[in-house]
Amino acid sequence: MTIAQKNPKPSVTSGPLPASTKIHVAGEIHPDIRVPLREIALHPTAGEPPLRVYDASGPYTDPAHEVAIEKGLPRIRAAWIEARGDTESYEGRAIRPEDNGHAGEKGAVPDFPVRHPPLRARHGRAVTQLAYARAGIVTPEMEFIAIRENLGRRAAKAALLRDGESFGAAIPDHVTPEFVRDEVARGRAVIPSNINHPEAEPMIIGRNFLVKINANIGNSAVTSSMAEEVEKMVWATRWGADTVMDLSTGRNIHNIREWIIRNSPVPIGTVPLYQALEKVNGIAEDLTWEIYRDTLIEQAEQGVDYFTIHAGVRLAYIPLTVDRVTGIVSRGGSIMAKWCLHHHRESFLYEHFEEICDICRTYDVSFSLGDGLRPGSIADANDAAQFAELETLGELTRIAWAKDCQVIIEGPGHVPMHKIRENMEKQLAVCGEAPFYTLGPLTTDIAPGYDHITSGIGAAMIGWYGTAMLCYVTPKEHLGLPDRNDVKTGVITYKIAAHAADLAKGHPAARLRDDALSRARFEFRWEDQFNLSLDPDTARAFHDETLPKEAHKVAHFCSMCGPKFCSMRISHDLRAEAQKEGMEAMTAKFRDGGDLYMPVARATGAAAAGE
Amino acid sequence: MTIAQKNPKPSVTSGPLPASTKIHVAGEIHPDIRVPLREIALHPTAGEPPLRVYDASGPYTDPAHEVAIEKGLPRIRAAWIEARGDTESYEGRAIRPEDNGHAGEKGAVPDFPVRHPPLRARHGRAVTQLAYARAGIVTPEMEFIAIRENLGRRAAKAALLRDGESFGAAIPDHVTPEFVRDEVARGRAVIPSNINHPEAEPMIIGRNFLVKINANIGNSAVTSSMAEEVEKMVWATRWGADTVMDLSTGRNIHNIREWIIRNSPVPIGTVPLYQALEKVNGIAEDLTWEIYRDTLIEQAEQGVDYFTIHAGVRLAYIPLTVDRVTGIVSRGGSIMAKWCLHHHRESFLYEHFEEICDICRTYDVSFSLGDGLRPGSIADANDAAQFAELETLGELTRIAWAKDCQVIIEGPGHVPMHKIRENMEKQLAVCGEAPFYTLGPLTTDIAPGYDHITSGIGAAMIGWYGTAMLCYVTPKEHLGLPDRNDVKTGVITYKIAAHAADLAKGHPAARLRDDALSRARFEFRWEDQFNLSLDPDTARAFHDETLPKEAHKVAHFCSMCGPKFCSMRISHDLRAEAQKEGMEAMTAKFRDGGDLYMPVARATGAAAAGE
Repeated sequence: MTIAQKNPKPSVTSGPLPASTKIHVAGEIHPDIRVPLREIALHPTAGEPPLRVYDASGPYTDPAHEVAIEKGLPRIRAAWIEARGDTESYEGRAIRPEDNGHAGEKGAVPDFPVRHPPLRARHGRAVTQLAYARAGIVTPEMEFIAIRENLGRRAAKAALLRDGESFGAAIPDHVTPEFVRDEVARGRAVIPSNINHPEAEPMIIGRNFLVKINANIGNSAVTSSMAEEVEKMVWATRWGADTVMDLSTGRNIHNIREWIIRNSPVPIGTVPLYQALEKVNGIAEDLTWEIYRDTLIEQAEQGVDYFTIHAGVRLAYIPLTVDRVTGIVSRGGSIMAKWCLHHHRESFLYEHFEEICDICRTYDVSFSLGDGLRPGSIADANDAAQFAELETLGELTRIAWAKDCQVIIEGPGHVPMHKIRENMEKQLAVCGEAPFYTLGPLTTDIAPGYDHITSGIGAAMIGWYGTAMLCYVTPKEHLGLPDRNDVKTGVITYKIAAHAADLAKGHPAARLRDDALSRARFEFRWEDQFNLSLDPDTARAFHDETLPKEAHKVAHFCSMCGPKFCSMRISHDLRAEAQKEGMEAMTAKFRDGGDLYMPVARATGAAAAGE
Repeated sequence: MTIAQKNPKPSVTSGPLPASTKIHVAGEIHPDIRVPLREIALHPTAGEPPLRVYDASGPYTDPAHEVAIEKGLPRIRAAWIEARGDTESYEGRAIRPEDNGHAGEKGAVPDFPVRHPPLRARHGRAVTQLAYARAGIVTPEMEFIAIRENLGRRAAKAALLRDGESFGAAIPDHVTPEFVRDEVARGRAVIPSNINHPEAEPMIIGRNFLVKINANIGNSAVTSSMAEEVEKMVWATRWGADTVMDLSTGRNIHNIREWIIRNSPVPIGTVPLYQALEKVNGIAEDLTWEIYRDTLIEQAEQGVDYFTIHAGVRLAYIPLTVDRVTGIVSRGGSIMAKWCLHHHRESFLYEHFEEICDICRTYDVSFSLGDGLRPGSIADANDAAQFAELETLGELTRIAWAKDCQVIIEGPGHVPMHKIRENMEKQLAVCGEAPFYTLGPLTTDIAPGYDHITSGIGAAMIGWYGTAMLCYVTPKEHLGLPDRNDVKTGVITYKIAAHAADLAKGHPAARLRDDALSRARFEFRWEDQFNLSLDPDTARAFHDETLPKEAHKVAHFCSMCGPKFCSMRISHDLRAEAQKEGMEAMTAKFRDGGDLYMPVARATGAAAAGE
């Protein structure tokens, strides 16, 4: 395992997670697809098969894969895309100095060594997964996803004892490729999969699938480098990020993104407005549709899988933000608001939305309709500005759908617990069940430094209510740019939130991992307990702080309670004792009451005095 | 600020939090009471008065107080107790070698230097706050609490714009001493306040008051010392723990507890069974009612404010746990189950419950009726064993109330989100609205090392639904004994959960702090943002990692977005621009539609294709 250094060929963290093997499952409709899953081996005394878990980490955790950042990942989807016969290769847009913010020789991030000429749709065709789904085509991407989402569902029949409250979500007992197709066709799920990012492993974002999480990375004008950002991307997916947004600003923005995309096994999202703003030297008023449009094409050719587009920030809504405690807190939202107000014009994103759709359908870039007016404080939650914009996002969703474009909708922000559910319900109603993609929400403003937690609470809840993807928040939120440790903390926190949501929704396979870990815990299989956890390294390190010896890995206690006070050890004694007598006989005896049953008579006298 | 060392006179962390002053508010009914509150000063440009916050940290954060651990804290309640004229001083039970687990000369924790002869009720009278409340007496403790709970409620009229969903809680606009009395009289709130712990500042636990949090400390047979535990107690209250449970096991248990109680500004809870078990060398079967009873008196004389008593673990319920994935995970529960099963007898705690009440009313020790059969995994949540025990806790609550004893009810544990609310509703119904005191609950089992977060999610939710006190979980849960850093992380996480719950319940003063912090954030008052946060030290450190200079404390950006992309800075520009034109005129124009309003006609064509 190595750590990224500041050099042009960054090294990244690789190697399997503890006790884990990457397996590949072949398709049936498409026999050439190889769906990666992670199997966690358990101790022989468990008498259990390895546990299969969802694995977004890509080839980096496969020892059979030789990591070579300067070459990029294998282009697994290239043949599938080619086989569809609806795309063409072309020269593409030339890279210009302003694409990298006029980074000079010194401090410039080198070009990525390999150039792949971009693909685009032929003759104005839609090459989106939505178009295929509507045409009744089950793409390799869809079958890949079906296999991936099922995990061990079929094998583990027990899990089909469904239990949960799904708030109207319709999670099937088993995910078929046809189900994936149908959900995509209905606009209830998206498969972010730019034809120019064939390195990515297909994944799906939708309310009837596993809840996904996104990790934001990206340098800022103030700090960090390309090597750091590539490693952050690999690092984030290692711990479970399902998509990564590159929110870089400052110089070298084009080249940093190229290194990230070529090496990313997960879909990459961006906010194209950030780069467009760099091209006009940070002066919002100088933005034009032409510059923005050119940036969309630049990024679509690179392979960005989804664009955050703040087309719902309309001129008329800006006055609604003026009495807010925290104004406009979305970077994209504030930039567009400034542009609108300065020119006294309707947003060019709104006015040119159909043209944006035409670009997106040419490359299959999914829309992530940005919530530029999301609340930035508890005080501003669920206000008129926020919900006015949401209505517009619903309107834009329908336009995008008419153009065969895939759409997800971004959501808040800062929302106290009692106002979270309204967000989900309104979004479902207004946006026709397009997937919701929320930032947190943060449930209080008073804990900077811990906003992964203030927001993890809200994320778990809104995930339960129906959000399809949760955008992580790191401990550095509001304070500074997250580093590698912050990225990991953010990802693990959001994996917790997403998984808690899956459990509560009644996802049929979600509890398999909880139960396996609980059994390991009860049987003092410490190694299994570490290995089954979201972060085996931290679990082990915490345990070993006080009981580092190998012998303690099979000890029937830990330092929390010590040997005499371990309830689980005592529980085992109890079971052994009970078995001597025959537990069933005992149960029957006690259930009948018998002479051991304490009559509640003495409680009667108390009842009157009680309340 | 100093850190505890391993020595007989431990030093503890003291000194005010940043920008904070401890103020004292006098009573009206009882003019001699001095209620401590913390005032956080804001930057002059804020134009705002200091923000008052609840302050459980005791004299340690008061520069006027000279810390002397070997003397203990001032005995502020001694005169109030004396004035009631219903107690008497007596010699008390002699300390025996087994009280400290036969700790020899070597490694023995020294006796606390000052011995205060214990008090007890005269002639079998009840000296509980419940008894006084029922008699219509507003004690100094009650007025102290009323002042403490109100914070700046009266001054900040704006906060009275109530907003929230309280699930039946009845939080008043203003807390009067009479309201406190009434809630205690109804059993809906408790004031844990042993007459032998006059050092503690009165606080209340009830659904219609601020949600409280408890921090567990205590050594185990494997690790840690008295000095560490005293510092953990002071440290936990510094960051906001409202009560502290000393869960020590192993040797020196009596003396460690004495040092803790004499120095604790918050109520101390214990599980007397742990010490009783030490007295029989860890052999559960050897426990007797006599040993247990003696331990209750020993601890009551020391000043323990509440006892966790697992009297609901009845013999008949044990078979219900046999098919569980994780058996019995409460230490007390498993010990009692083992005793019951071994002797084939009903629990001696259940059988002697009225005698236990007699002891508790003699000293005003509150009951925390333990949930010995709480689920230890998602798989076991809300099962028959758990709810059978809850029914018994309801029965015991009525017995305790008949004896004028104060009661809170402990709750789970491990519960997925969709099963949390049922716990709260059942508890309210079965236990006659006695306050609920829950451990988490943890919403998934798959994240050892992050169980402060898995449980923080559940804690926030159950706090919203009505839990009165949340027992923290630290990152070390399931893995080892928490250290000082873990204690702080656990406390801050639970302060977040409690505060998020207060906000969602619609507590009239809760949002004052969020709003103050959000205003500071929007106005780039970085120092205020740090100082208003739950953990100013961490917020500042995170910010300063990338922008350490003093100048950056007034900079209108941070390293997350850099200067050009700061949405808040842009928002300010927007407002300035808007003001030039007159925002009201602008608003009116846009609301009317005008020529800038985009007709939705073009969306119509899309509607058919959409879903």
